[in-house]
Amino acid sequence: MKVIVAKNAGFCFGVKRATLLAFEKASETTAGVTCTLGPIIHSPQVVERLEEKGVRVINSLDEMSQGRVILRSHGVTASEIQEANDKGLEVIDATCPFVKKAQNQVKILSEEGYDMVIVGEKEHPEVAGIVSYATGRVFVVASAADALELPSMQKIGVVAQTTQSYNTLEEVAAVCLAKAKELRVFNTICDATSVRQDEAKVIAGEVGCMLVIGGFNSANTRRLTEICCEIQANTHHIETAGQIDQEWFAGVDSVGVTAGASTPKWLIDEVLEGINALCGDKKG
Amino acid sequence: MKVIVAKNAGFCFGVKRATLLAFEKASETTAGVTCTLGPIIHSPQVVERLEEKGVRVINSLDEMSQGRVILRSHGVTASEIQEANDKGLEVIDATCPFVKKAQNQVKILSEEGYDMVIVGEKEHPEVAGIVSYATGRVFVVASAADALELPSMQKIGVVAQTTQSYNTLEEVAAVCLAKAKELRVFNTICDATSVRQDEAKVIAGEVGCMLVIGGFNSANTRRLTEICCEIQANTHHIETAGQIDQEWFAGVDSVGVTAGASTPKWLIDEVLEGINALCGDKKG
Repeated sequence: MKVIVAKNAGFCFGVKRATLLAFEKASETTAGVTCTLGPIIHSPQVVERLEEKGVRVINSLDEMSQGRVILRSHGVTASEIQEANDKGLEVIDATCPFVKKAQNQVKILSEEGYDMVIVGEKEHPEVAGIVSYATGRVFVVASAADALELPSMQKIGVVAQTTQSYNTLEEVAAVCLAKAKELRVFNTICDATSVRQDEAKVIAGEVGCMLVIGGFNSANTRRLTEICCEIQANTHHIETAGQIDQEWFAGVDSVGVTAGASTPKWLIDEVLEGINALCGDKKG
Repeated sequence: MKVIVAKNAGFCFGVKRATLLAFEKASETTAGVTCTLGPIIHSPQVVERLEEKGVRVINSLDEMSQGRVILRSHGVTASEIQEANDKGLEVIDATCPFVKKAQNQVKILSEEGYDMVIVGEKEHPEVAGIVSYATGRVFVVASAADALELPSMQKIGVVAQTTQSYNTLEEVAAVCLAKAKELRVFNTICDATSVRQDEAKVIAGEVGCMLVIGGFNSANTRRLTEICCEIQANTHHIETAGQIDQEWFAGVDSVGVTAGASTPKWLIDEVLEGINALCGDKKG
């Protein structure tokens, strides 16, 4: 079995930084309680390893009264940071610097009187964080069709969830231009997502089976799976090596492997070992 | 002969304002020399009437050393205003307020570090004036194809010549978004042009002959003629009633009349009288 592993599989810059920071803090013996506000990244396996080291996930600051809180890579809301500070907690900010930038740009534009349009998914924690920095009117749109429903405004500021597609940003910007006298757009999209997707598309077209590794709660991994599926019907989203089904490899002589931005290298390695154990390895 | 006259024929807000101002100043007996820097509007007939009242057109400030200078509706360059002030001339600013706004926005964006993209025709005096307010890099593009040739930039500011089509602005903005991390667009397009064009299209489709009145040096009148020609082949661009050719009306039972933004009402009235004299009038 020939195995092609994507060069851009796994951790992006922001996730790597957040994870390193969390494990570093977990290994410090001086501190008392250490929690992450929401999962540090969308990988249940990484979260589990951190829990083994005593770092607990909380979903609300009500769950802790002292100690150290790590802000996850997707960021949290402005009021949550305020609350943590008010409580006297030690705040470790593991927010991805690109997300941080988007939050800051919303704050600045909002203070300068722009009505804000955020391109992204309403229910995504990154979007909830970004939205919270608006001091004036703010709308979340997932598509140009959503943007068409917006009212006319004098000055519109547009910022995107960092993992959005550029096409969606462009289409939303065009709709907003028609609704305003002034339009200001910050392209806050991080290339990592599109680079990963483009490479996955190429690999999916060259193999007989495609495996996409990543948390079932990871939006970018789910999207990556969808994209591969469009090209290679024999595509499967797995979290761990144990989920591989040997039947997927029947009559197949090559398998492609990629992974979402929250997938650690050790999980990818385990999947490669799993393929090898089942079929014998000839890595491409 | 049925005659349909466009409601939106002739003077736009900025042209009306400039013309009134020029005639008002011409009638003041106190001042010495009064000149306009470039034709006050693109109507040779209006310019001629002003000349009869002693208001001369100059093409350069070298042609005057004292007196009063009127800045035309399309605006002049920043250095020309500076030169007029340095010479101690009395400056009467008849620049269209919408053009003035575009000039100011270029100045502000440029001072804030944006590389400027002006959507318009390089050789148009309005564009030359707007461009002159940029303190940093500035590019003029007439189309999205032109914009594709631009280099990548950090921050792009986009402003349009007031008579550009909205579609061109939208297309150029989309290209610029792909070339920058930040895009700021001021929609400086004045609706008068598109409203006039849309009405002319409807009328051209209903009549057997279409007349478009306006200076042969008026870009908006030439464009209006082109638009009518696409719908009604029997379309003619004239400056005055004397240019009407009776043959245009052969076998025709209705004629449409519109006029560019620089065409005064009395020229339109003369054309209507001309049609009446040739064919008998039944105004629609």
